[in-house]
Amino acid sequence: MSFHTIGIIARPGDRTPGAFHNLLNYLKNRQCEVLLEDNTALHQQESRYPAFDRAELCAKSDLIIVIGGDGTLLGTARQAVLYDTPILGINLGRLGFLVDISPEEMLQSLDHVFDGNYEVDSRSVLEACFVDENGSHTALAINDVVLHKWNTARLIEFETMIDGHYVEKQRSDGLIISTPTGSTAYALSGGGPLLHPALDAIALVPICPHTLSNRPIVIDGNAEITIKVCGDTPADQVRITCDGQDSLALPSEDKKFIIKRHKHSVRLIHPPGYDHFQILRNKLGWGNHHARK
Amino acid sequence: MSFHTIGIIARPGDRTPGAFHNLLNYLKNRQCEVLLEDNTALHQQESRYPAFDRAELCAKSDLIIVIGGDGTLLGTARQAVLYDTPILGINLGRLGFLVDISPEEMLQSLDHVFDGNYEVDSRSVLEACFVDENGSHTALAINDVVLHKWNTARLIEFETMIDGHYVEKQRSDGLIISTPTGSTAYALSGGGPLLHPALDAIALVPICPHTLSNRPIVIDGNAEITIKVCGDTPADQVRITCDGQDSLALPSEDKKFIIKRHKHSVRLIHPPGYDHFQILRNKLGWGNHHARK
Amino acid sequence: MSFHTIGIIARPGDRTPGAFHNLLNYLKNRQCEVLLEDNTALHQQESRYPAFDRAELCAKSDLIIVIGGDGTLLGTARQAVLYDTPILGINLGRLGFLVDISPEEMLQSLDHVFDGNYEVDSRSVLEACFVDENGSHTALAINDVVLHKWNTARLIEFETMIDGHYVEKQRSDGLIISTPTGSTAYALSGGGPLLHPALDAIALVPICPHTLSNRPIVIDGNAEITIKVCGDTPADQVRITCDGQDSLALPSEDKKFIIKRHKHSVRLIHPPGYDHFQILRNKLGWGNHHARK
Amino acid sequence: MSFHTIGIIARPGDRTPGAFHNLLNYLKNRQCEVLLEDNTALHQQESRYPAFDRAELCAKSDLIIVIGGDGTLLGTARQAVLYDTPILGINLGRLGFLVDISPEEMLQSLDHVFDGNYEVDSRSVLEACFVDENGSHTALAINDVVLHKWNTARLIEFETMIDGHYVEKQRSDGLIISTPTGSTAYALSGGGPLLHPALDAIALVPICPHTLSNRPIVIDGNAEITIKVCGDTPADQVRITCDGQDSLALPSEDKKFIIKRHKHSVRLIHPPGYDHFQILRNKLGWGNHHARK
Repeated sequence: MSFHTIGIIARPGDRTPGAFHNLLNYLKNRQCEVLLEDNTALHQQESRYPAFDRAELCAKSDLIIVIGGDGTLLGTARQAVLYDTPILGINLGRLGFLVDISPEEMLQSLDHVFDGNYEVDSRSVLEACFVDENGSHTALAINDVVLHKWNTARLIEFETMIDGHYVEKQRSDGLIISTPTGSTAYALSGGGPLLHPALDAIALVPICPHTLSNRPIVIDGNAEITIKVCGDTPADQVRITCDGQDSLALPSEDKKFIIKRHKHSVRLIHPPGYDHFQILRNKLGWGNHHARK
Repeated sequence: MSFHTIGIIARPGDRTPGAFHNLLNYLKNRQCEVLLEDNTALHQQESRYPAFDRAELCAKSDLIIVIGGDGTLLGTARQAVLYDTPILGINLGRLGFLVDISPEEMLQSLDHVFDGNYEVDSRSVLEACFVDENGSHTALAINDVVLHKWNTARLIEFETMIDGHYVEKQRSDGLIISTPTGSTAYALSGGGPLLHPALDAIALVPICPHTLSNRPIVIDGNAEITIKVCGDTPADQVRITCDGQDSLALPSEDKKFIIKRHKHSVRLIHPPGYDHFQILRNKLGWGNHHARK
Repeated sequence: MSFHTIGIIARPGDRTPGAFHNLLNYLKNRQCEVLLEDNTALHQQESRYPAFDRAELCAKSDLIIVIGGDGTLLGTARQAVLYDTPILGINLGRLGFLVDISPEEMLQSLDHVFDGNYEVDSRSVLEACFVDENGSHTALAINDVVLHKWNTARLIEFETMIDGHYVEKQRSDGLIISTPTGSTAYALSGGGPLLHPALDAIALVPICPHTLSNRPIVIDGNAEITIKVCGDTPADQVRITCDGQDSLALPSEDKKFIIKRHKHSVRLIHPPGYDHFQILRNKLGWGNHHARK
Repeated sequence: MSFHTIGIIARPGDRTPGAFHNLLNYLKNRQCEVLLEDNTALHQQESRYPAFDRAELCAKSDLIIVIGGDGTLLGTARQAVLYDTPILGINLGRLGFLVDISPEEMLQSLDHVFDGNYEVDSRSVLEACFVDENGSHTALAINDVVLHKWNTARLIEFETMIDGHYVEKQRSDGLIISTPTGSTAYALSGGGPLLHPALDAIALVPICPHTLSNRPIVIDGNAEITIKVCGDTPADQVRITCDGQDSLALPSEDKKFIIKRHKHSVRLIHPPGYDHFQILRNKLGWGNHHARK
C-alpha cells in the first residue's frame, strides 16, 4: 500500500502549528496531495489546500495523519473505519496509547512510512445497534460501548445474552463492553484485564456490581452481545455511550440493544519497531516501583 | 433505658399485616403507648392509634420499631438520629445487614428487649454540608455520602482535603464516603474494605479512578473531609447522594462541600446475642465456597 | 465418534460404590468393553475387569469416565490429553465446573452420549518446559502453570517475554499462567478475569504485585511465554506448579522456563444442553445477591 | 523531649559515608554523645565511638538516627520499640514511606529537631504470640504479621476469631494482618485499603482467597485476633512472618497464634511540616495519570 492522497486532522494546541507546517512541507516534498479537515484548515488559517468535513476527508484520503492525542485519534478512527482508511498519529504532549510518534521523530518516521517500511496495527471496532420508532441506529466504538445509569443515583438492572445464551441478570452501575484497544481505558479503571491488541476478544466489565462474584468476562471477538434493561429500571435512567463521547437513550419499548464487532477494523500505521509492551510499561509506570516498601 | 411509647413504621408488603398485628397485640399486652407513622396507618388501614409523619413520630417515641428491610430502616434512621431515638428492625423476607429479627422470633426477641435485656449498637452517621445562595444545607447519611457524575459520560475531577490537609486531585466517576455501616453497601461494590461497626472510621472509596493507585483510604471518624469539584467539571455534572436516595446539586460558585460525622449516632436495638460476623457470613456467603475448584 | 472401550476412574468416597456399580451394569448392557484404573479396581474391590495404570488406561480406552470431582478430572485429563482420549465426568457431591453429570441423571445422560447425542467441549492445555543438566522437562496443566515463591517470605523477581517481546520485570509473589478452564480457579482468586472456554487465550495474573498497575493480561492462545527469574531471587526460592499439584524446581543455571499451548486439547464429553454460563451462575452464586443492601 | 545520647545505624551503601560523616560532625558540634551500632562501626571503619549491638544501642540512646531505607528503619524499629526509643530516618536513594529526610536537607532538618522543633509520629506495633513445647514466643511487626503457606502449592485453611467472636473459616494463600504503617506495603499489594497512620486500626487482608467475598476487613486497634490453622493443613505447611523478615513455624499441637497491639508504639521523629498525604502522592504516583486515555 502506498500513500498519495493524505488527509490531515490537527487538534488546536500550542505545539500544533510547528508540527503542522513541518508536516505540510514534508508532504509537499514527497509530492503528496494534501487534504485538510475543515476545522483544521480554519484553526491553522491554512487555505492553500482543499478542506472537507471528517467523513469526506476519510473517504477521499489514502491515509489520515492525526496531530493530537488519543482522544483526537479515537474520534477520527470512528469515521475512518467506515471508509477503511488507515491512520497515523503524531502526538503533541504526552505519548499516548495510540498516538505514538513524537514531533522530534516525525520526519524520520514519515520517511519510513512513505518508503513503505511500516507496520499495520489492526484494531477491532464495536458497533452498538438498537431499533426505536425512528428506525435502526448504529454507533461505533474503538474503545468501548458503555451501558450506564443516567439521571439517577440508584443501581440499574439488566440481562446479558451472548450468542443467544443467557449469561445473567446483573444489578450494578453499568457494564463496559470493551475492545482490546479499550482495555487500557475505562475498562481498566473498572477492574478489567489488559487485552493484547492482537487477541480477537471482547471484555465485559461490570461497574460496581452488587454481587461481588460478577467479575470481568472475556469472550470471543465474534460474539454478539444482547443487553436488555429490565426490572424496575426505566429506559430514561440508562444511556449507552461510545468511547466516552455522545450518550444515546435506549428505546423505551424493549430497552434492548446489541453489540458486535464492526465488519472493518481500524488500521493504525506505525513506523517499524512499534512495541505494544513498551507503551504499556511507559503509560502504566511498570518498573517504577510505585507502592510497597 | 425502658421503652414505653413505641412508634411503628411498616413497609407495605404481603407479609406485613401479619407481623404488624402481632406487634400491635404484643404492645397492647405490654401496655405500651403505640404511635403509627401516617403512611403505615394508611396502608394498614389502622385508625385506632394516633398517626404522625416520620419526624414527629421519631420525636414522640421512646423506640421506633421498623417492619421492613434495610432500606426502610435506613430511611427511618436518618430521621430518628435527629431525635436520638433508638430503632429496632423486624425483617420481612431476607435477613438484612441491619434488620435482624425475623417474624418467627419476633415475640421472643421483643420479650428480651422490653425486659431490658438488649444490646445497643451505635452506628456513626455522616452529614454532608454545603452553602449556596439559599443558605446552608445539610443532609444525613447512615451508609454513605456519594459524589458522582450526573448527566454525563465523562470523568469528573475533584480535590479532596482531610482536616485541612490536601490529599489529592482525582479523576474518576466519583467518590464514596462511607461509614462502617455503609462498608457492606455501595462502598463494597466499589472495592472498599469491610469496616467493623465498632471502628470509629470513615472510608473514602474512589469509583473507577483514572489512576490505578487511587485506592480506598480509611481515616479517623473525627476527620472533616472537604471535596471541591474542579478542572473542567461544571457544577451541574456532579451530584451528591446520601444513602442512594435524594440527589443534591452542588453550589455552582465554589462547587465545594464538607462531610463530617454527625453529633449523634443511630442506636440500633438488638436482642441479646447479636453477632455482626454471623451476619457477614450469612449475607456475604462466607464458607459457601463459591468459586475455585 | 462412537465409544466401545470405556476406562473408568473412580475416586474413593461414600457415594462412589453406588454410582460405580450402576455404571458397570449400564456399560454391560451397552455391551461395552470395560477397563478399570488399577487404584479404582483396588478400592472398589472389583476384579472382573482388566486394570491398568492411568497412562495405559487412557491409551487403551475410547472414552474415560471419571466418577469424582473437578480435581480427579483434572488429574485424569493431564494423562488423557497425551492420548487424545475424551473424558466424561460424573460428580459425587457438589456440581463441579468440569464434572457436570449428577448421579441422578447419569443413566439418562449416558443414553444420550452412547447414542451419539453429545457435545464435545475442547479445552486448551498448557505445557511448561525447561532444561537442566538432566535434560528437557515438560509438565502439563489443564488449569494453570504457576510460578510462585517457595520457602521464603520475600518477593520474587522475574522477567516475562511473550513471543520474544520483553513485557516487564515484575516483583510479586508469583505469576499465574491460566487457560480459560483455569480462569475460574486460582486465577480468579488472584483477580483475573473469567475467560470463556471457547476463547483461544491465555491469562497472565500477577500474585500480589509490588507495582499496583501490574494487572492481569490476556494474550493469544498461540503465544509462547518465557519467564526468567532474575535479580536477587535464587532458583531455590521459586517453584513451578501445574494445576496446584506437583511443584517443580527451576534449573539453577538459567532460571528460565517456557509455557505454551500443548498440541492437543482435552476433549470433555457433555450430554446435550451443556451450558457454560449456567455453571458459572450456579458456582459463582450470580443472582443470589450476596452483599450490598 | 531533648536528645543528648544519639545512636546511629547506617546501612552500607555508596552514598552512606558522606551522610554518615556529616552526621558525626553535626552531632559533635551539637555536643551530643554518639553511640554506634556494631555493624555500622565495622562497615564505616569508625572506631572513635563506642559500639553496641542494636538492642543495647536502643537501650542506651535518647534517639536513634537511621541512615538507609524503609527496610533498615523497620528492622531498627522492632528493637527500638522495646525501649520506647524514638527514631529519625535519613534516606539514601529514593524517598521512603518512613524515612523521609533527604541528605540535602539533613542538616537543616536536624537543626529543627535538636532545637525541639519536631513532630512525633506514633505508629502502632503488632505482636504475634504463640506457645509451643519450648514455652511462649513473641515477635513484633511494624508493618504486618503474615500467615502464609510454606513448602506447598496448595491452599491453607484457617479460622479467625476477633475478641473471642468467630469470624470465619477461610481457604486462601494466607492472611496479612497489617498496621496502618503496613497498609502501604504488602497489604496494599494484596488489595487492602490505605489506613491513615493516626487511625487506631488493624487490617486483615486475605491473600488470594477461595471465596470471592472474603474481602479486607478493618477492625479496632485494640482487638485481639486469634488464628487457628485447621482442616487438612498441617502445621509445617504454614509460617508466620513479621515485616517480611524471619519466618516462624507454628506450634504443631494447637496450630494457633494470637496477634494484638504491642503496649508501646514506635515514635518516628519528623522535622516540622511532615505531610503523610504528600508522601502517598509521591510514592503512589497520584496525579501522574498513568493509565486510561
